[in-house]
Amino acid sequence: MESINVALESPTLSRMVTPMKPSDFLKNHWEKSKHLVLHGDVQRFYELPGISDVESLENVLAIYKNPVMVVGEAVIEETGGIADRFLVDVSEAREWYEKGAALEFDFSDMFLPQLRSWMGKLKNELQLPPGAGVKAIVYAAKNGGGFKAHFDAYTNFIFHLKGTKTWKLSENKNVVNPVQHYDLVEKPYIPEELSTYWQGEHPEDSLPEADIVNLVPGSFLYLPRGVWHSTSSSEATLSLNITFTHPVWAELLVAEIRSRLVKNEIWRELAVNINFLDEKSKQEVLHKLDTELKKISDNISSIKAEDILTRDSEDFDLYHITQAVFRQSLASKHMY
Amino acid sequence: MESINVALESPTLSRMVTPMKPSDFLKNHWEKSKHLVLHGDVQRFYELPGISDVESLENVLAIYKNPVMVVGEAVIEETGGIADRFLVDVSEAREWYEKGAALEFDFSDMFLPQLRSWMGKLKNELQLPPGAGVKAIVYAAKNGGGFKAHFDAYTNFIFHLKGTKTWKLSENKNVVNPVQHYDLVEKPYIPEELSTYWQGEHPEDSLPEADIVNLVPGSFLYLPRGVWHSTSSSEATLSLNITFTHPVWAELLVAEIRSRLVKNEIWRELAVNINFLDEKSKQEVLHKLDTELKKISDNISSIKAEDILTRDSEDFDLYHITQAVFRQSLASKHMY
Repeated sequence: MESINVALESPTLSRMVTPMKPSDFLKNHWEKSKHLVLHGDVQRFYELPGISDVESLENVLAIYKNPVMVVGEAVIEETGGIADRFLVDVSEAREWYEKGAALEFDFSDMFLPQLRSWMGKLKNELQLPPGAGVKAIVYAAKNGGGFKAHFDAYTNFIFHLKGTKTWKLSENKNVVNPVQHYDLVEKPYIPEELSTYWQGEHPEDSLPEADIVNLVPGSFLYLPRGVWHSTSSSEATLSLNITFTHPVWAELLVAEIRSRLVKNEIWRELAVNINFLDEKSKQEVLHKLDTELKKISDNISSIKAEDILTRDSEDFDLYHITQAVFRQSLASKHMY
Repeated sequence: MESINVALESPTLSRMVTPMKPSDFLKNHWEKSKHLVLHGDVQRFYELPGISDVESLENVLAIYKNPVMVVGEAVIEETGGIADRFLVDVSEAREWYEKGAALEFDFSDMFLPQLRSWMGKLKNELQLPPGAGVKAIVYAAKNGGGFKAHFDAYTNFIFHLKGTKTWKLSENKNVVNPVQHYDLVEKPYIPEELSTYWQGEHPEDSLPEADIVNLVPGSFLYLPRGVWHSTSSSEATLSLNITFTHPVWAELLVAEIRSRLVKNEIWRELAVNINFLDEKSKQEVLHKLDTELKKISDNISSIKAEDILTRDSEDFDLYHITQAVFRQSLASKHMY
């Protein structure tokens, strides 16, 4: 297959990071997972098709044919403290907005084919594999709200459209390349897998070493995975997020290993809970597995980089795909 | 950990397969993936808490606070042939039922805690690992409908409550222990992974070698994964399915391998699409991956059966979990 350097000309990325050169963005921010804030005229966003369609909450409410997640104090009150968010019919979203709940319009691109036209190109310009997922989310809140300190395992590009929102952004000294989300309120608990690559002490809740940035209409934020961040606001805000979920190399390798294992009908047998087996059956299961494990070493050792790369278009983010399919089914009645 | 033989006393399974002994069911049907049909008085189902709550469509419509999947010709007409199913508000479900659509009440157990009380016990009695998923689905149709020939990768226990539905059930001579669903209408196409363990010719669409079974009120069907089946009916029917998604050994092993890989930050780097790299960068990526691959062989070779078993409570079925979480968010407003 011929190698094509598409990064030399990146029309979508160029519009997003202007006046920065896309190649400088890729080298100094993308590859280093270093956040970037660019302020400017909100009009420049509208060169990207579809963004002007979400410039007001009224427009979004008119376009969006799906349940809307409402988040915050108003929901905590409604549920007697049990939940801080739930989904409501879009016809009720305005009422919750007025009550002070933040609105999250997930998968907004389902209703904005103009957005989709360049989201796919952006994926290529970022050199992400076909199996990476991308979606658009619109956030709206009447009087602020905000999120406490956390970091994500996905990438966000944020187009800030209305109001002022204050962001704290702080380098992550605990983990490099995280593959899962973590909320600082969980401190001192660290999930088992994350703890295997966590180093040092948690930051303080207030993120004292953070950059403090006010996003205003026309501000653009590249938020890499892993960066600690918190947000706050005291006025009506509206923003569009383009969010990428992207496989890491481990996931491509694991997909290749899985494909080799499932050729063997023993590896396709249902796993059993050995705690519910008698001693003899338990020993038989352990023996069977150990016997099969001995056989696979050579097979796995033969895996080459090229084998891994052939897995790059698989569906890695099942959360993303399952939700997309479900939301499509919810929208279908309105869409034909 | 002490080994406990709970299978000796399986109160839930015993109620389901009566008058068969649970141990006979496990040995002759469950372990052999051999289907089982038992007819009897529908009243015996009601000894399992919650089943009597879904004995009529009216009851189900009153309990279920979630979108309902409507399936069939009525939907095909509505969408101009583009889709054969979509989700509608439960308040509209009756109207679609009257138009002839089949109704699928997925995750009905969310609204039937009495069902949940024994579904979890059943999982243990079937010796499934904690990470297995279980849910209840109610199906209702006014004038039949049905599904064309296919096989599933999950297990179904069907409690038939109303009307007569004709099932064809045919041994699968093409695949043993399938880990994915397959519809016979896809013939001759076979998805890549499935083709790696597929043998022989497809059966004919009519499943000429099938057992033909009429399920009537009080009929119980154990439908193992993999069994070819199709259904048809010409009258109003209602049934409750208890569906298990269950990890296979390959998935536990893959989870163990993944956990070892992600400790290394290089395996946590974002995968890139090498088609978008220049030749030099491409060679660097290939070299990096091949270097890391050489290092992991010893690590993977050291995996023992016990390591795999420690993975048995992970979330294997992300489709199941993601949908459950989403449906919970849709129901929350009604539930507090």
